[in-house]
Amino acid sequence: MTAEIITIGDEILIGQTIDTNSAFIAKEFNKIGISIFQITTVQDDKEHILKALKEAEDNADIVIITGGLGPTKDDITKRTLCEYFNDVLVEDKAVLQNVEYLFSKYIKTPISDINRHQALVPSKCKVLMNRYGTAPGMWMEKNGRVFVSLPGVPYEMKALIENEVIPLLRKTYSFPYIKHKTLLTYGLGESAIAGRIEDFEDSLPDFIKLAYLPSLGRVKLRLSAKSMDEKLVEYEMEKQVDKLIPLVEDIFVGFEDDMSIEQIIGSRLTDVGETLSIAESCTGGRIAQAFTANSGASQYFKGSLVTYATEAKINVLKLSEEEIEQNSVVSRQVAEAMANNVRKLFNTDYGLSTTGNAGPTKGDSHAEVGTVWIAIATKDKVISKVFNFSNHREKVIMKATNKAFEMLLKEISKK
Amino acid sequence: MTAEIITIGDEILIGQTIDTNSAFIAKEFNKIGISIFQITTVQDDKEHILKALKEAEDNADIVIITGGLGPTKDDITKRTLCEYFNDVLVEDKAVLQNVEYLFSKYIKTPISDINRHQALVPSKCKVLMNRYGTAPGMWMEKNGRVFVSLPGVPYEMKALIENEVIPLLRKTYSFPYIKHKTLLTYGLGESAIAGRIEDFEDSLPDFIKLAYLPSLGRVKLRLSAKSMDEKLVEYEMEKQVDKLIPLVEDIFVGFEDDMSIEQIIGSRLTDVGETLSIAESCTGGRIAQAFTANSGASQYFKGSLVTYATEAKINVLKLSEEEIEQNSVVSRQVAEAMANNVRKLFNTDYGLSTTGNAGPTKGDSHAEVGTVWIAIATKDKVISKVFNFSNHREKVIMKATNKAFEMLLKEISKK
Repeated sequence: MTAEIITIGDEILIGQTIDTNSAFIAKEFNKIGISIFQITTVQDDKEHILKALKEAEDNADIVIITGGLGPTKDDITKRTLCEYFNDVLVEDKAVLQNVEYLFSKYIKTPISDINRHQALVPSKCKVLMNRYGTAPGMWMEKNGRVFVSLPGVPYEMKALIENEVIPLLRKTYSFPYIKHKTLLTYGLGESAIAGRIEDFEDSLPDFIKLAYLPSLGRVKLRLSAKSMDEKLVEYEMEKQVDKLIPLVEDIFVGFEDDMSIEQIIGSRLTDVGETLSIAESCTGGRIAQAFTANSGASQYFKGSLVTYATEAKINVLKLSEEEIEQNSVVSRQVAEAMANNVRKLFNTDYGLSTTGNAGPTKGDSHAEVGTVWIAIATKDKVISKVFNFSNHREKVIMKATNKAFEMLLKEISKK
Repeated sequence: MTAEIITIGDEILIGQTIDTNSAFIAKEFNKIGISIFQITTVQDDKEHILKALKEAEDNADIVIITGGLGPTKDDITKRTLCEYFNDVLVEDKAVLQNVEYLFSKYIKTPISDINRHQALVPSKCKVLMNRYGTAPGMWMEKNGRVFVSLPGVPYEMKALIENEVIPLLRKTYSFPYIKHKTLLTYGLGESAIAGRIEDFEDSLPDFIKLAYLPSLGRVKLRLSAKSMDEKLVEYEMEKQVDKLIPLVEDIFVGFEDDMSIEQIIGSRLTDVGETLSIAESCTGGRIAQAFTANSGASQYFKGSLVTYATEAKINVLKLSEEEIEQNSVVSRQVAEAMANNVRKLFNTDYGLSTTGNAGPTKGDSHAEVGTVWIAIATKDKVISKVFNFSNHREKVIMKATNKAFEMLLKEISKK
């Protein structure tokens, strides 16, 4: 079973918006055994949309269309869908009520004719109600294929995929059994791993694929099995994972199928009732933000500091001015003192710290661009390591963040 | 002049990776007058890549191919390019030297045969050297069209586009004159703005287009002019902007063509030598991270706190336990005390704070999900406002972040 995703919107083609929707849809669809054949971003233009719809219909069983449903006049998606399906637009009462409700609750202005148009849908479509926004999803069928049009706003689209589209697809089709196991590894490059596990990869059965997913200092190894035979998938997947782990034991930090590494850390800390605080310098709040993006973070995350200026390290984090001067702000001593002091300040089990120079200039320290110290303090000890991540600011920040997660997960796992 | 972007990579089609590259390329190309006709993501599959290359060649003058150049065996892009251009792979000495340099400096392992393969390029291509990674860019020409293949790693691709591809395109073609002006507005929805400026939009000359770019509580209005006549573009753009601003004066916060709002704030603070500190609760570090993502942040950003737990608000930020109990953690009093205290703690001109409930559950407070207080303290005063952003966690965090930027920019602009 295959799907195509068509993304409509000049805002993507002019680079104003990044298409995050397609990745989300692709991930959810792959979980239930629908492969994405192609993702195509087209202009807000009738002929272009019609051409893409026709091509997608030729290639795939399911066509997901996102975007092009906003209230302003550059949106022509609904009229084009009507032309493609030989249909007309009619007002849907339930959608209109939803528009009125959202306006009265959050926007607090009366609805205009432009907003009222959001309630117009093709007469033959099944409406998928959008709790979080005014544009509904629309489910249409043609020549044995399913077409679903969804709003382009990410959280609106996500909720519709999870709550409406996937359940309806499950009712409409029967799917093969699919299983992914993703091994998260740190510390070895993609090509070095590939060389090491070449024989393993070559001996995989046909219905199990291995993919390398390298990203800023970590490589994910994803095994994907797909078959109508659920028992075979379960049996072989377990067997292959048992063969793979010993080959990468020194670099393996955990499975990451439904959770990111920061969610794994959060979940382990919550399970044992332990807590975390963070003092960031060069990572500038990114580590804290990764934890707090997940609901439930308040169970283990008590708080954090960004001490960007040296003065803040002294005044807020109570580091000794003398120690900083003697060792420089980017040093083992400062990283360890930051981890110890933030742990005491927030009264947590773990204190994590970063201090480094992300570049492009040398800033308060004289350390080479890319140098980062990371430290972790517990009640009994403090550990620290130094890295040189790269000469690129964004890369340094992201690699330091990933490395901090890795060190923290290892430390937590020791207990 | 038009371009197409072809993104190669199963990792995008399975949703493991978000394609941020296309937006970047689209933005840079639009700046110099190249429109993107279509973005197509295809599989790591020879036939699929060949089909996409042929179609792109039919539609566009320039074809940019990203991804599919990693060292592991699932990458077949280079061999497919050779087939398409009827060419063979040869080892490029300069690329090999670059691979060896990067390994000796950052990876510190000897290079393997797999890494050495990175130096193989089609014999007829012009090599674009990649400072940040081992896979080079490749520039090829066929039937009067330009094809450029770039690595998929974002910062590698970005540097190649900026330093190699754009300058080479400028040498190869002559481009129309293009100008964008983006007005950032806050506080009114897309459809309400559209209603208000309908007459203005209808009266725009043919070569100036208006686009609405709504995003989480702010709407950008982008005017784009394109013509071979530079003087006409400059003259008309100024005239139209002068007509538009009075129509949106109450919601207009600034121009945002090359800078984000947080960069505008940073630049204004740096210009006047003022400083900022932040105490975040529900936004969890996102505001700090937005500032520190930009180089030069250390000029005005002294530091920040995430006081997620109520206990941290009391111990670290020195809020009164009694005041929190009397008013709840999500209250005007707590927001204002946070802003005042963080300003004093970090000794800055501005103190910014957020406290709210992002959901999905009520957490430490009893405030309705979506309620957020934002406060800004200066030496002389503290201002604060309450909002209810939505019932969706991510949306609440992002809207609160945007709103905090808006309030801060307004406050700074008053002086």
